Amino acid sequence: MPRFPTAAAMPAPFARLPAPPYYAVIFSSQRTADDEAGYAEAADRMMRLASQQPGFLGAESVRGADGFGITVSYWDSEEAIAAWRAHAEHAATRAEGRRRWYAHFELRVARVERAYGLKESSFA
Amino acid sequence: MPRFPTAAAMPAPFARLPAPPYYAVIFSSQRTADDEAGYAEAADRMMRLASQQPGFLGAESVRGADGFGITVSYWDSEEAIAAWRAHAEHAATRAEGRRRWYAHFELRVARVERAYGLKESSFA
Repeated sequence: MPRFPTAAAMPAPFARLPAPPYYAVIFSSQRTADDEAGYAEAADRMMRLASQQPGFLGAESVRGADGFGITVSYWDSEEAIAAWRAHAEHAATRAEGRRRWYAHFELRVARVERAYGLKESSFA
Repeated sequence: MPRFPTAAAMPAPFARLPAPPYYAVIFSSQRTADDEAGYAEAADRMMRLASQQPGFLGAESVRGADGFGITVSYWDSEEAIAAWRAHAEHAATRAEGRRRWYAHFELRVARVERAYGLKESSFA
C-alpha cells in the first residue's frame, strides 16, 4: 500500500491543475442564515457553469459550520477570468449573492507562480 | 442599520490586508481521521507563530465536516514566505503533518494582483 496517495488516488475535492503559471480567484465569504436551498442550488449551478467556460482549470471549495467559506477557482489567463465575470447568468447570480446570501465576502485575483503537493514536498 | 458591513464591522474570519500586490500561500488539505487533539493544537500553534513572523499580513482558514480544508495565508514578499518555510518549528510540524495528519495536500504560491470586497463590488 503506498504511503502517499498517487495522482490517480488524489481525493476528489482537490483540483488537478497543470504546471504554473496560471491564475487563482480566491473568494472568501460569510453566508447569511437566509435561503439555504436557493443558495445551494445557485452554488452548484455556478460551479457547473464555471467548469464549462474557456480557460477554467479547476476549483476547490469548502464551507464550515459557522458559514464561513473559501472557494478558489483556477484559470489559464486573466482574460478567462474577465470573460467569466462578464457572463450574464453569473453576473445576475452575483447580484443575488450580494443582496441575500452573503453577509460579507472578499475576492482576490492572483497569479500562481509555483505549486507542489504532499508527495513532492516530502523530499523538500 | 447599514446594508453592507463597514470595514470595522467585518466579521473576524476575514483577513484585513493592505492594497495589492502581496503574496498568497493557498494550502488545501484532506485530514486523516487521526489525532484530532494533536492536530488542533499544532494548527493553533502554527497560526500564532506565523502571525508573529516578519511579512505576515493575515490568513483565512476553513475546514468542512468531511475533513477537507483550505487555509490561505498572506505575506508581503516571497522572502517572507521562504523565511517562514525555513522556520525550524514550522518545518518539524510540517513533517508531522505529512506523516500523520494529512491524507493529501496541495500548496500553491501566488502573487495577488487585485482585490475587492462586497461593498466595492456592489458598484461593479
